[in-house]
Amino acid sequence: MKALEGIRIIDLTQAYSGPFCTMHLADHGAEIIKIERPGIGDQSRTWGPIKNNYSAYYAFLNRNKKSISLDLGTSQGKEIFLKLAEDADVVCENFKVGTMEKLGLGYDVVKEINPRIVYASISGFGINGPMAKLPAYDIIAQAMSGLMTITGFPDNPPTKVGPSVGDNYTGTYLALGIMMALYHRELTGEGQRLDVSMVDTLFSILENAVVQYTVAGEIPGRNGNADPGIAPFDAFMAKDGMIVMGVGTNVMWKKLCNIMGRPDLFEDPRYLNNDARCRNYLPDLKDDVESFTRTKTKEELEVLLNEAGIPFGRIFTVAEAAKHPQLQAREMLIEVDDPVLGKIKIQGVPIKLHSTPGSVQQPAPMLGEHTTEILLQMGYSRDEIKNLHDRNIV
Amino acid sequence: MKALEGIRIIDLTQAYSGPFCTMHLADHGAEIIKIERPGIGDQSRTWGPIKNNYSAYYAFLNRNKKSISLDLGTSQGKEIFLKLAEDADVVCENFKVGTMEKLGLGYDVVKEINPRIVYASISGFGINGPMAKLPAYDIIAQAMSGLMTITGFPDNPPTKVGPSVGDNYTGTYLALGIMMALYHRELTGEGQRLDVSMVDTLFSILENAVVQYTVAGEIPGRNGNADPGIAPFDAFMAKDGMIVMGVGTNVMWKKLCNIMGRPDLFEDPRYLNNDARCRNYLPDLKDDVESFTRTKTKEELEVLLNEAGIPFGRIFTVAEAAKHPQLQAREMLIEVDDPVLGKIKIQGVPIKLHSTPGSVQQPAPMLGEHTTEILLQMGYSRDEIKNLHDRNIV
Repeated sequence: MKALEGIRIIDLTQAYSGPFCTMHLADHGAEIIKIERPGIGDQSRTWGPIKNNYSAYYAFLNRNKKSISLDLGTSQGKEIFLKLAEDADVVCENFKVGTMEKLGLGYDVVKEINPRIVYASISGFGINGPMAKLPAYDIIAQAMSGLMTITGFPDNPPTKVGPSVGDNYTGTYLALGIMMALYHRELTGEGQRLDVSMVDTLFSILENAVVQYTVAGEIPGRNGNADPGIAPFDAFMAKDGMIVMGVGTNVMWKKLCNIMGRPDLFEDPRYLNNDARCRNYLPDLKDDVESFTRTKTKEELEVLLNEAGIPFGRIFTVAEAAKHPQLQAREMLIEVDDPVLGKIKIQGVPIKLHSTPGSVQQPAPMLGEHTTEILLQMGYSRDEIKNLHDRNIV
Repeated sequence: MKALEGIRIIDLTQAYSGPFCTMHLADHGAEIIKIERPGIGDQSRTWGPIKNNYSAYYAFLNRNKKSISLDLGTSQGKEIFLKLAEDADVVCENFKVGTMEKLGLGYDVVKEINPRIVYASISGFGINGPMAKLPAYDIIAQAMSGLMTITGFPDNPPTKVGPSVGDNYTGTYLALGIMMALYHRELTGEGQRLDVSMVDTLFSILENAVVQYTVAGEIPGRNGNADPGIAPFDAFMAKDGMIVMGVGTNVMWKKLCNIMGRPDLFEDPRYLNNDARCRNYLPDLKDDVESFTRTKTKEELEVLLNEAGIPFGRIFTVAEAAKHPQLQAREMLIEVDDPVLGKIKIQGVPIKLHSTPGSVQQPAPMLGEHTTEILLQMGYSRDEIKNLHDRNIV
């Protein structure tokens, strides 16, 4: 049994943010009925990498879900959606703010027919405020939240996080909000609306950068790979490439001095405590540490630092990470048998519930793969379904 | 009423990852009893920015929580912890793997006295696998997950995300896992163990970079601020600084060509569709777009692109984001009256539940502020509490 079995989610989301939300819930057993436009489908069906004329992007993100094609612009399409929503636990959407209301499918309409519904929305800026109705992509949220100005190197421009964290983090917040609302509903019987925004999300994860401004009066900048508050805590060159390490305590610092064959540095007034080490990090301390690390290979450093209990890491490419025994042991790269792509390897389930483990049991659905099954369940006859199909409503 | 009222969480976490998890749950009404070492407390109590000899880091992260000081190394300390766990819904911890078992407070012990408990752990690498027992900091997970090699500019080294996303994202996953386990428990009466790891978490958010390797056979690299699959979708220089924009469709591209006064570009074979625009992005398309954006101010571009419905963003410093009317309208910067720091502004609640809104009602607790209150509730007398205090057990 999985934790969320019995929960039914009508999923109108597409692209990355909303589908990442419902991926988490699907992995743990919720039934996700993905509504896609007839003949077109989720826009991510065209996103790379493409193989056999099919999207591996769509494939990794939509595992464990069902797909029904439905044109929400038609009155019969709306009717089918509302019938689905009548029995559902959750409706999810990531249209531009106001679109669901324009379609006549807003929260007010759905709660009339199902007061227990949890109606969950993602947008770029949130459903209220002066920018609510503007379109946004991930990069807009990364820029506007302040995140880009505190990522990267001081002598480089503001820097975007590689993967679209504005999308996936907001999707994760939506999943968390949905679970909170469902928990509350179990106790009270009451559904509700919730919304999350990409800019709010990224602003909420800026760590102490916000109080650095509001309390200390400083505008945080870019520190490259170094931590501004702990030293040495950075990326360093080894003989054969780059590694990272973090020396978080005086005890670790003493061990590092010994490993480096420089016990004198532990007595050095420039490095007496973490404060002093931060003040004298550039160029002194960084040079002292790197003049040691440059003499050792990554593997030699790994052995030495692991033995001393000093947090150490290789900087892996995505390929190296995917193949690593630790990620393998955690089942973070799993195989799914996709009907078009064949056996492909995709990310596994990161939230490990030990008694009710999540898993990937089904590949992503073909467009409209479950339309007939679901409409039959709802009481439509095969003739009616054929008729709807012929008119491009499903 | 808040969504999670009535949930009691015994919170052994410290630093950033675990406390970020319980911050979300506290904001939505769960009672968080933070267990801190007598006289020392959470290690983040020493983290900057510091004002009035007190940590603004601790203050923003631990709002809405209660603090009890307790030495888990003593037999009476363990006894008090187990009594608390007997009635609690959740135990949270982010010690090094194996520490709770060594203390005699592992899941097996706690579930004996409370089979309904949800026992939730965060670690660097996960509780199983060859690296399980190694220490980790955020930068280690950013390096080992592959994230650093796909963030930053191609001619720069691998780049860490500024804020510690390895910590806060893993904390958010833990919160989501806890809510899934609590939902399941409401239906079945059964608690369970769960764990999340920092490396798993960051690997799970690499978007299509994983299938780019496993399906397309390419090892993803760094693309700076440009999206490798959509163009133009990047940061560009304006007359007075840098902006971002994303042109996601041919319709938007046509509008941009008109805004640029270059309708010829829409017919240009190099830019006929998104595929062609991606292939000819560097240097041709980027130069063509930037030779226009350089002639306009950020404000002029904002007006032009907003009118055309093309996603546009300013690149804000943390200060500019914090003061922005959109984030203000969303209550993402709120004031809390801290007993030591006075009135300070901190990040608000990003998950907006409309009927049961989360909020910040209490500042972060002083070390052990609620020890007496909670021990009295548990049935200890004032004399017993004084005795425990004198012996540094609480």
